[in-house]
Amino acid sequence: MAFDLDALNLRALARGCAVLGTGAGGDPDLGVVMAQQAIAEHGPVPVVRLADLDEHACVMPCGMVGAPTIASERIWSGDEGAVLARMFEQLHDGPVTALMCFQIGGANGLLPVTWAARCGLPLIDADGMGRTFSGLHQQAMHVAGVPASPVALTDGRDNTLVLRASDDLWAARLAGDAAASLGGVCAAALYGMSVARARDAVVEGTISLALRLGTALGGGGIESAVAAVEDVLGAVVLIEGKVVDLERRGNEDVEFGSATVQGTGAAAGRQLRLELRNEFLLAFEDGEVRASVPDIICVFATDTGEPIESETLRYGQAVAVVAAPGPAVWRSPRGLEAVGPRAFGYDVDYTPRAGVGARVRA
Amino acid sequence: MAFDLDALNLRALARGCAVLGTGAGGDPDLGVVMAQQAIAEHGPVPVVRLADLDEHACVMPCGMVGAPTIASERIWSGDEGAVLARMFEQLHDGPVTALMCFQIGGANGLLPVTWAARCGLPLIDADGMGRTFSGLHQQAMHVAGVPASPVALTDGRDNTLVLRASDDLWAARLAGDAAASLGGVCAAALYGMSVARARDAVVEGTISLALRLGTALGGGGIESAVAAVEDVLGAVVLIEGKVVDLERRGNEDVEFGSATVQGTGAAAGRQLRLELRNEFLLAFEDGEVRASVPDIICVFATDTGEPIESETLRYGQAVAVVAAPGPAVWRSPRGLEAVGPRAFGYDVDYTPRAGVGARVRA
Repeated sequence: MAFDLDALNLRALARGCAVLGTGAGGDPDLGVVMAQQAIAEHGPVPVVRLADLDEHACVMPCGMVGAPTIASERIWSGDEGAVLARMFEQLHDGPVTALMCFQIGGANGLLPVTWAARCGLPLIDADGMGRTFSGLHQQAMHVAGVPASPVALTDGRDNTLVLRASDDLWAARLAGDAAASLGGVCAAALYGMSVARARDAVVEGTISLALRLGTALGGGGIESAVAAVEDVLGAVVLIEGKVVDLERRGNEDVEFGSATVQGTGAAAGRQLRLELRNEFLLAFEDGEVRASVPDIICVFATDTGEPIESETLRYGQAVAVVAAPGPAVWRSPRGLEAVGPRAFGYDVDYTPRAGVGARVRA
Repeated sequence: MAFDLDALNLRALARGCAVLGTGAGGDPDLGVVMAQQAIAEHGPVPVVRLADLDEHACVMPCGMVGAPTIASERIWSGDEGAVLARMFEQLHDGPVTALMCFQIGGANGLLPVTWAARCGLPLIDADGMGRTFSGLHQQAMHVAGVPASPVALTDGRDNTLVLRASDDLWAARLAGDAAASLGGVCAAALYGMSVARARDAVVEGTISLALRLGTALGGGGIESAVAAVEDVLGAVVLIEGKVVDLERRGNEDVEFGSATVQGTGAAAGRQLRLELRNEFLLAFEDGEVRASVPDIICVFATDTGEPIESETLRYGQAVAVVAAPGPAVWRSPRGLEAVGPRAFGYDVDYTPRAGVGARVRA
């Protein structure tokens, strides 16, 4: 069903995107302010289904590339989407019909709302990940064989790049390096495709999902947060407890590390270890994998019920760790090749875990 | 006068390019082997003057960007020029009529010969520097106001980039970073322009000059080398002596440092200090500037008469240091802004020095 993004539902969308960030992807809140202003000036953004669009229409997946921490301190002009759309029209020899978030999780679930409003274009109810991944090749379109190239990049300050890479891994690497050159972060459009091609190459329904999730979360503390992810994502609680060990290393782009949560209350005596690489990737208990990427692992602060980004997690914090099954595309062989535990260097096979995914995701 | 580059004069061209490298730009010898093979397969490369070309014809300045030390260990496919020409034709909406070295000094004086042979296109008797500079904005075209963008880049392995920068400094920075992403070095075409525009925007006659210089050098030891640069470039000898101090620091892209030459023979008791940043930039004696960029400063090995690259200069080596005036474009106010001593961070104004340039450059 088609609906609009407007001043009333943007905050709920942002809350949903924060959970789907699985600990990474940047804070969507700044994006809310930008989108509110763009919507005030240009009107609400229609969210449309692929089924409602002409099959020859051109879809532009877009978002930011680079370090989210820099992005949150950067002034976006808001024109980046229009610059990318003009580049895309030249590259694909025709008008862009709709924008799509390439990543629903984190700040990238919001930034394209601003761009869509300012371009006067609809946003597709879909994205390329159904969550957050740090690699630009970790996209459903990649799994479906849609090439990332040509990739359009701009810093919104008159610098643009078009890159055509020999494969999607090179595209991801070159785009990441270009973002670094452009000051740490830039706007990107890639995986350009027709609506017909998109139909079996994207994760559909994820704007609706994030909105439903954000609405259910409601800001009502940890109980309602847990109830919301159980209900909307089919999540299970892995542990409630306290961060008793935290090890982190990395640079401005990547944060590696692990966190140990010591159970409290009913979980007293138990310990869960989280492995992270920007996103929360794996949860171990007693040497057994309790959940692993592409499962969506999310850590909530017990005192506020808000999801916590991996880089702001701190020693002593009281948390609830939940896990939900990720989109089906990631559990296919090609999907696991791109985003399974081994893609991140862990010598672990992905298997759906007891509990996680026992309830069907809405 | 039009002439051909062929198996007979390539070595002389390379010798001339090595001197014009002013200590940098990479070893042209690998380029000789590639060019010989390309010429054997595709025939000699015509070298033409701008005056002989249609004024609407499109000129493609090209060469490699990145670290020459990596370039010398890298396998070029030889097709990079054809890839760049196809990209340029799209970007400039018409066929490329002739290639031009953007840098005559070092390896970049030879690489476009291979590309021209394989594309079946002539090479213009001109370049963008009349010597070597490490910055892509340090081009006569930049001084004349021809924009570097759009810049076409390829690694010759199916990765291509087109970048449009807000100014030539950003273009240089982004292209340098892209070269690093592509493995340290890549092929580039930039400053695309018509023949009419090129007429007051390039350094003309530099292929002929390098060839004349290389022919005069002849490989006959230090006396004939010094006589050749005096005769062809109007150079003066700054000192003959021995390297008694050498300080170097830097990374794979940039080598900073200084070298002190203690005079021997008639120069006994004198000392000359060379400052280098890839290229030899300044020569001081008793606190006075004897020569400075954009002067062409070249160091010859006394035992062989061969020019020495700054990064292979070694302690104890017997050398002759010479200086010649650089092309006139660099002594203009805009030229000095781009390549004068201050552009390299030295608090020194450029003034033509006594001796250097006293003889008119051929």
